Amino acid sequence: MAGTDPAIAEASGRVLAAVARTRAGLELPPGDVERIVADFVAGRVPDHQMSAWLATVACAGLSDAGTQALTRAYVDSGDRLDLRGIGRTVLDKHSTGGVGDTVSLVVVPVVAACGVAVAKMSGRGLGHAGGTIDKLESVPGLRLDLDAAATVAVLREAGMVITGQSAALTPADGATYALRDVTGTVESVPLIAASIIAKKVAVGADGLLLDVKTGAGALIPDRTEATRLATTMVRLAGTFGLRCTAALTDMSQPLGRAVGNALEVKEALDVLRGQEVPGLTELARVLSRLMLRIADPGLSDDAADARVADVLSSGAAYDRFRRWAAAQGADTRTLDRPDLLPTAPHRVPVHATAAGWVTDVHPRAVGEAALRVGAGRLAQGAALDPAAGVVLHHRVGDRVDAGDLVAEVHHGDRDPDGAFALVQSAVVVGPEPPAPRPVVLDVLDPIPEAERK
Amino acid sequence: MAGTDPAIAEASGRVLAAVARTRAGLELPPGDVERIVADFVAGRVPDHQMSAWLATVACAGLSDAGTQALTRAYVDSGDRLDLRGIGRTVLDKHSTGGVGDTVSLVVVPVVAACGVAVAKMSGRGLGHAGGTIDKLESVPGLRLDLDAAATVAVLREAGMVITGQSAALTPADGATYALRDVTGTVESVPLIAASIIAKKVAVGADGLLLDVKTGAGALIPDRTEATRLATTMVRLAGTFGLRCTAALTDMSQPLGRAVGNALEVKEALDVLRGQEVPGLTELARVLSRLMLRIADPGLSDDAADARVADVLSSGAAYDRFRRWAAAQGADTRTLDRPDLLPTAPHRVPVHATAAGWVTDVHPRAVGEAALRVGAGRLAQGAALDPAAGVVLHHRVGDRVDAGDLVAEVHHGDRDPDGAFALVQSAVVVGPEPPAPRPVVLDVLDPIPEAERK
Repeated sequence: MAGTDPAIAEASGRVLAAVARTRAGLELPPGDVERIVADFVAGRVPDHQMSAWLATVACAGLSDAGTQALTRAYVDSGDRLDLRGIGRTVLDKHSTGGVGDTVSLVVVPVVAACGVAVAKMSGRGLGHAGGTIDKLESVPGLRLDLDAAATVAVLREAGMVITGQSAALTPADGATYALRDVTGTVESVPLIAASIIAKKVAVGADGLLLDVKTGAGALIPDRTEATRLATTMVRLAGTFGLRCTAALTDMSQPLGRAVGNALEVKEALDVLRGQEVPGLTELARVLSRLMLRIADPGLSDDAADARVADVLSSGAAYDRFRRWAAAQGADTRTLDRPDLLPTAPHRVPVHATAAGWVTDVHPRAVGEAALRVGAGRLAQGAALDPAAGVVLHHRVGDRVDAGDLVAEVHHGDRDPDGAFALVQSAVVVGPEPPAPRPVVLDVLDPIPEAERK
Repeated sequence: MAGTDPAIAEASGRVLAAVARTRAGLELPPGDVERIVADFVAGRVPDHQMSAWLATVACAGLSDAGTQALTRAYVDSGDRLDLRGIGRTVLDKHSTGGVGDTVSLVVVPVVAACGVAVAKMSGRGLGHAGGTIDKLESVPGLRLDLDAAATVAVLREAGMVITGQSAALTPADGATYALRDVTGTVESVPLIAASIIAKKVAVGADGLLLDVKTGAGALIPDRTEATRLATTMVRLAGTFGLRCTAALTDMSQPLGRAVGNALEVKEALDVLRGQEVPGLTELARVLSRLMLRIADPGLSDDAADARVADVLSSGAAYDRFRRWAAAQGADTRTLDRPDLLPTAPHRVPVHATAAGWVTDVHPRAVGEAALRVGAGRLAQGAALDPAAGVVLHHRVGDRVDAGDLVAEVHHGDRDPDGAFALVQSAVVVGPEPPAPRPVVLDVLDPIPEAERK
């Protein structure tokens, strides 16, 4: 079955040896990972061989050298942005994703308003977790498919840019991800790390903040595994010259109140205008501080916090978002008057059935409810309802009385009953107050103590 | 990518969950393994998903329950032979394969001559290891593609039958093996065990002798792993009601003298006529004894050995082979006059280059040499040279002088130089006698002590 084409026979032999060596925990010969990925993209390695190797990596792990080689292979498969023309430090930010994770829409303009340029390429929603691009598509006029030249131009003009993943960057990662998605090999620390860091290396920023979620609603729920992913990515980014800090943050309940595309944009605009949203505002402040300190390791935490507070209270962060959105074609009236953003025709209230404390808001059930009403995709390529979603009125630890409004399902008649039942089951009320849940669990910061103030 | 066909979406979901659960070391829901295999055979599970699961099993292992389910799925995918009409105990024998492993051609007629019926379905050669069917095809006229009715008829008439694997038995194993072969997932204890035992269950004998090879020339060289395979298979066979004994035997050097198809048939005929071939005769006697004791657990080792010695010295074993071969269409003159079997036109002698003791005869190098001259297949479907191969004149531990003939390459002009170099490098002569290498390393016999004499 190796066929008679010598290039294909050689490629097959290399994958088969890689499967056996990876399974045995042995290093692969230098250059083999890069050749396997190139052969896969070129069609010399068929899907069934690539998926055997990916499944073996997901199972047996991959050495640091192997993970670096995989990252390099992804980067080398496509173009790289050239941000040198910006003439100042450019940062990137990445979240591993979660339910109601609106924080990028706050942090990027806050950091940009503080004078640090931010370039962010984002993806679409995956399963129960929303994606930044899906959220921003609810803003009329906003263009999210910028090419390299437009990306650099917007970054220069607005000090920030958010656009969809360019297919010209790391195409080998895209091809590999599509295969992982249908072979049960998404959840693997080295495969996730290589995929994320390769995209960041191709964008070519100077520094990177990683928001690694942990808890029931995260891609990697287990805290130990999530920590392993965070440390792997910080180390991997470092080997590619990217100054990287990772925050391990809580996704045991949805972040903020809103879950859904236009709903989350409105919530982000509220925070940028100075409103406090429990959970979301706190996380946005911490991540913004960490990004300012990546750009200027000499900055103290207090000084960074003061800058962030200032751009939020002065309206500078909101103005920055507006200026950026205008640069990408948005109708800024819809930002100033959020009632012009897509709004669902119906709302179904969800009430507490008993008095007590909210002890859980199960993020996957809430995410699934938002999917049901059209906030996400149940099938590849399905159309979204930008207005649909869930608004939560309480977080874990809140005191509620029987009959209190705990959530609302916003919908346009796509399965509101299914969504209602999911939200009702998601919000758990108990007789005892639960232990407090910090928003930020840990910060993995490779900046040496000596350099800190 | 799950598509819209609900049966395919359900099948995909099941495989993806199986990949994740198997990776985590968790049991699969009852019936899932069987459904996955059935879906794979029916085309509802594509190759890339099946290979991800197989690679995960090869890496993380599979529970006893999972391995039983896989075996059952293979058995249920095809027909089963019905041997009840034979009216007496029928045994089966399987070897995991090796270089010069001619032992089945001796043991099957010996055991049959002792009055115990033997039904053996054999495969073709794999890589450096020869296959019984390839060997027997060198006998003019011998038919090796019997259908179920002919298999039973020959077994009834001759008390033994050896034929090729019927495609009607365990077709799911065939399909899975083809995928494993091209995805680096052959070497896995649960996958090998399920594949072998399923074929034996489908044949439906009452008892089974397993010859599990270990050492450099074996499918599983490592002794601990080979022992694990042997115990797994004995246990698995037991759950399907098959009385099974396993012998762990040495494949750190080729077995016997001959490596090659007609060469090995001639060697087997020599042993059946009473000649002693170092290694081969000893192994054949032990395996025959073990088979007689599976058929009659009350038989003592000494009594079994005496019966075996008797059928070898009396010519009864040879007569049995002859009678069987005639029943399957062989021209028996070629058995009585082996010079009528295919004979290579050329022989290249290999001489010892120093005096000393033979410390190694590397089996993979000898197997590769035999492949080069045409005894095996370098590519799928390639034609064999039935006469070609290697004859070894010395085994590990023999004393040789410089210039002694240690081996001969029999060939018909296909790459004799390559074969010569390989054989020369394979036979290692050192200044000290090596430690003795027993032929049988261990016997895994589930017959309780109390039942033994």
